[in-house]
Amino acid sequence: MEDVIINFLKDVKLRNPILIQGLPGVGNVGKLAVDYMKDELKSIKFADIISKYFPPQVLIDHDGTIRLVNNELYYYKHSGSGKGNDLIMVVGDYQSLTPEGQYELADRIIRIAKNMNVKRIYTLAGYAHNDINKNIIKIWGATNNKTLIKEMEKHGVIFKRDDYTGSLVGASGLLLGIGLQYGIDAVCLMGETSGYFIDPKSAETLLKVFIKILGINLKFENLQKKAKEIDKITQKFQDIEDENKEDKDILNYFA
Amino acid sequence: MEDVIINFLKDVKLRNPILIQGLPGVGNVGKLAVDYMKDELKSIKFADIISKYFPPQVLIDHDGTIRLVNNELYYYKHSGSGKGNDLIMVVGDYQSLTPEGQYELADRIIRIAKNMNVKRIYTLAGYAHNDINKNIIKIWGATNNKTLIKEMEKHGVIFKRDDYTGSLVGASGLLLGIGLQYGIDAVCLMGETSGYFIDPKSAETLLKVFIKILGINLKFENLQKKAKEIDKITQKFQDIEDENKEDKDILNYFA
Amino acid sequence: MEDVIINFLKDVKLRNPILIQGLPGVGNVGKLAVDYMKDELKSIKFADIISKYFPPQVLIDHDGTIRLVNNELYYYKHSGSGKGNDLIMVVGDYQSLTPEGQYELADRIIRIAKNMNVKRIYTLAGYAHNDINKNIIKIWGATNNKTLIKEMEKHGVIFKRDDYTGSLVGASGLLLGIGLQYGIDAVCLMGETSGYFIDPKSAETLLKVFIKILGINLKFENLQKKAKEIDKITQKFQDIEDENKEDKDILNYFA
Amino acid sequence: MEDVIINFLKDVKLRNPILIQGLPGVGNVGKLAVDYMKDELKSIKFADIISKYFPPQVLIDHDGTIRLVNNELYYYKHSGSGKGNDLIMVVGDYQSLTPEGQYELADRIIRIAKNMNVKRIYTLAGYAHNDINKNIIKIWGATNNKTLIKEMEKHGVIFKRDDYTGSLVGASGLLLGIGLQYGIDAVCLMGETSGYFIDPKSAETLLKVFIKILGINLKFENLQKKAKEIDKITQKFQDIEDENKEDKDILNYFA
Repeated sequence: MEDVIINFLKDVKLRNPILIQGLPGVGNVGKLAVDYMKDELKSIKFADIISKYFPPQVLIDHDGTIRLVNNELYYYKHSGSGKGNDLIMVVGDYQSLTPEGQYELADRIIRIAKNMNVKRIYTLAGYAHNDINKNIIKIWGATNNKTLIKEMEKHGVIFKRDDYTGSLVGASGLLLGIGLQYGIDAVCLMGETSGYFIDPKSAETLLKVFIKILGINLKFENLQKKAKEIDKITQKFQDIEDENKEDKDILNYFA
Repeated sequence: MEDVIINFLKDVKLRNPILIQGLPGVGNVGKLAVDYMKDELKSIKFADIISKYFPPQVLIDHDGTIRLVNNELYYYKHSGSGKGNDLIMVVGDYQSLTPEGQYELADRIIRIAKNMNVKRIYTLAGYAHNDINKNIIKIWGATNNKTLIKEMEKHGVIFKRDDYTGSLVGASGLLLGIGLQYGIDAVCLMGETSGYFIDPKSAETLLKVFIKILGINLKFENLQKKAKEIDKITQKFQDIEDENKEDKDILNYFA
Repeated sequence: MEDVIINFLKDVKLRNPILIQGLPGVGNVGKLAVDYMKDELKSIKFADIISKYFPPQVLIDHDGTIRLVNNELYYYKHSGSGKGNDLIMVVGDYQSLTPEGQYELADRIIRIAKNMNVKRIYTLAGYAHNDINKNIIKIWGATNNKTLIKEMEKHGVIFKRDDYTGSLVGASGLLLGIGLQYGIDAVCLMGETSGYFIDPKSAETLLKVFIKILGINLKFENLQKKAKEIDKITQKFQDIEDENKEDKDILNYFA
Repeated sequence: MEDVIINFLKDVKLRNPILIQGLPGVGNVGKLAVDYMKDELKSIKFADIISKYFPPQVLIDHDGTIRLVNNELYYYKHSGSGKGNDLIMVVGDYQSLTPEGQYELADRIIRIAKNMNVKRIYTLAGYAHNDINKNIIKIWGATNNKTLIKEMEKHGVIFKRDDYTGSLVGASGLLLGIGLQYGIDAVCLMGETSGYFIDPKSAETLLKVFIKILGINLKFENLQKKAKEIDKITQKFQDIEDENKEDKDILNYFA
C-alpha cells in the first residue's frame, strides 16, 4: 500500500482558506482546541488520511463498528461575504510515531494546503515548562515568517525569548519548517501547560487568543465536556501503551 | 527481495469464499481456534507468505528440516452444493513486528481476498480484560459494516459497549480497517481471556459460536492437544525473545 | 546509495563451487571456523559487501588506515582435477542488525551463489544450550533438503530431535530458508557451545567434522591464535555497544 | 518527500576545494572546531540539507522564528592566488539517528564533494578514552589512503596504534569509508577528550594542528564563547532527549 493515503470524501471549493492543525501532544492542548473549534463551528469532514506511519490499530465505537486510526480534514465556510477566510482543520488520533513518518505526513498536509491555495497555516499546541503561573497562562508563538510577528503580538502572543528556546518536536513544528520550504506562512501558537494531564484551561486561553486572530466567535460552554471525552479516549490509548511496555511478549501484543 | 512474497502452490477455484484469520495474539485464542479448525476440516494449503516484516528466522522440525517463518493460506471446500461458502484460512507463526509490516501484510491479504472474490472476512482473536467470569466466557464482536451486527447478535456475539472500548491492535483489527477501504465486509470475533497463557477454553467457546455462524460442524476432542502443541512452539519463541532481551550482545544474538 | 552494494574485485571462474558462510553469532563458533579455514587455505578475496544494514562504522587498522565494516567473499580452488569442489567463503564483521537487512543480505548472497552456479551451501554456527557435556561437543545439523541428512549423519552430525527444537535466528538460518526459495540445497552445522565467550574448542570440533564432509585437510595449530584475534576485535565492538547502551546521548554517540 | 533534500542557495565556483566536516559527536570536539573555523573565516552558506533522517524538529530563534534542524554547507575562498585550496565546511545540528540515514547522508555529501571536484576530505572529531593526560592532548588520525600518513605525521598527528583500535562510529568515519568507494582521499583528525562535556581545549589543540596542515591562520580568542553557545543549544537538545526518555507517553511527546 502507499505510505500515506488521502481519501477525499468530497470536492470542496474554499475561499482564502487558512489551515489549522491540532494533534495529540503536550497536555493535548492543541488537539482539544482544534477538536473543539471544529465541533462548535459544525465543520464538515472532507478527507481521511490513513498511513502505515500510524499505529496498526482500529478504534471501536460504542455500537461495535470500527475505523482505522487516522487524521481527518474538516472545512468550515465563513458566513460573511468577500474577504473572510474559510477554514481547513486537521485533527487526528495520533501523530506518526517515527521521524520518517512525521516528515512524510507534514509534507503531504503541506502539499494539500498548497493545492487548496492555502496562504497561511496555524498549528496549535501546548508548551510545557516548569514555572507556570497558573493564573496567567501565556500564549507563546513561533513562525516561519518574521513579518507575521507584529500582527500576532497585537493579540498578546509572545515571540521574543531571552534565551535560546530549544525546539518544537513533532507535527506542530514541522508544518512550519516544511511550510517554509513550500513558501507558505505558518505560525505555531502554544498555550502554557504543565503537560501531564489534558489541560482545558490552557486550551481555552489559547482559543480565546486564536479566535481574535481569526476574527470569529466561539462559545466555550462545552469545552469541559470535550476535554473529558478526549481524556477518556487517550487514557484508553495510554492503557494500551502501558500494557505494551509491561508485556512485550509478541504473542500477547496483538488482539 | 520483495517486501512480501506470496508463493501460490496451486490454482484454486472457490465458491463464495469466506476468509478467516487467526494469528498469534492475546492468549493465542485466535491462532488456536483457526489452527484447530483448519486441521479438523482437513484443509489444504495453497499459499505461503514470507516477508522481511517477519523475524529473520527459520523453524526446525523434528527431523532437522527447516522452513522460513511464514503465514499460510489454506482452503476448505464445503461438501454441500449450491449456496454454501468455501473457506480460506490464514494462519501463521508470527504477525509482523513493525507497524509498516502490519499494514503491508494486511493490505496484501485483503488484495488476495479481493482477487478471490471474498465477500466476507472473519478475524478471530482474544479479548483480554480483568474482571472475567471464568464460567461464562463472552464473545465480543467488532465490524466494519453495521448491518452485520444483527446477524452476529443472534448467535450471542456482543457488540454494544457502555463505554468507549478503545481499540484493536494488530492484524485482527487491520483486516477490518483495510477491508473497509476495499469494500469487503469484515467482523472480528473475540473470546474473553486472561491473556497470559494459551486459552483453549476461550478458543472453544469462540469456535462454538463461530461454527454456528458459518453453519458447519466441528468436533472438539483434539483441541487440548492442539493447544499444548501451540503452547510448546510459542514457548520456544518466548525463550528466544527472553534470551534476546537479556543478552542484546549482537555477537551472541544470532545462531 | 543502494541498500546493498557488491564490489567484485575480480572475475572468478569456479568449478562446482560450494558456498560456506561463517558470521558473528553464538560463541562466534561459525565466524571462527570459517575465518580460520579461509586463512589456512590461503583463500583469495574476490568481493566486498557493504550495506546500510550494517552499523555506520569504519574499522581502523594498526597503521591508521580504515575500511567500512563489511562482509567479504573469498574463494579457494581445490588442487585436484575433475570432480572436486571449489569453495566460496562468506565472512564478515557483522550481521545486519535489522530483520529487513537480514532478509535482504541473505537474498543477495543466495543470488550471488545462484549466479556462480553453487549447488550446495553450508552455514557454520554455534548452538547454545545449557546442559553441555564439555568433553563431548556434539555437532547438530539442520537442512532445507531432507535427502542430505543421511550423508551428514555418516559424519556424526545429529539431525533428529526428540522435541520441537525452536528456530535458527539470523543469517545461518536464512540462507537455508531463502536457499529453499531458490532451489539451492543448504545445511547448517552447529557446534554446541555455552555461547558466552568465543569458543575455539567448539569451532575445532565443528571444523573437524566439516573437513571430513568436504574431503579436505586442515591443520589446527593456529586456531587458538585466530580465536584470540577475533576475541580482541569483537571485544572492542562489545565495548562500543556497551558505551552506547549506557550513554544514549546523541551528542556523544558519534566520534 | 525525498529522503534527503539539498537546497542550493547559490552557485559556487571553487578552486581546488577541500571538504571539512564537523558534526555533533564525542565532546562536540569536531562540531566546535569546524563551527568556530567557519565563523572566524567569515564563511558563506551555500546549501542546506534537510532530511527525514534527522529528528522531526524545528529550532526556535530568540525572535521566535524557526528553521528545520539541518546540516549546512559553507564555503571559504582563500585570498591568495594560484595553488591554494578553497574550503567547503559541513556543519549541523544533528547527525542522522539511524544507520540507514548515516549511510545515505554520507553518500550524498560525498557525491556533492565529487561534483565540486573535491580531492581531499577532512573530518574533525573527538576521541574519547580513559587515560588522558590533560596537559598533553594528542591528535589521532585515521585515513582511507595510506600515502597521506607521512604528511599528517609531520604535523604531529598520530596514526600508528600498538593495538587494534576498534572503530569510528558515525559521520566522521563514514565519509572516509564511502570516500574510499568514490576514490576521494579522506582523513579523520581526532582530539583526545573525556567526552562527557563540550571540550574547547581539545578543539583548540585539534584546530592548531589542522590550520598548520591547511596552511591558514586563525585567532582563538572567541573559542570559549563559541563553546558556551554550542553547549547551551546542545544542553537544550539533551533536555528534550531526557524528557522523551522519562516520558514516552505519545500524547505528551510532541509539542
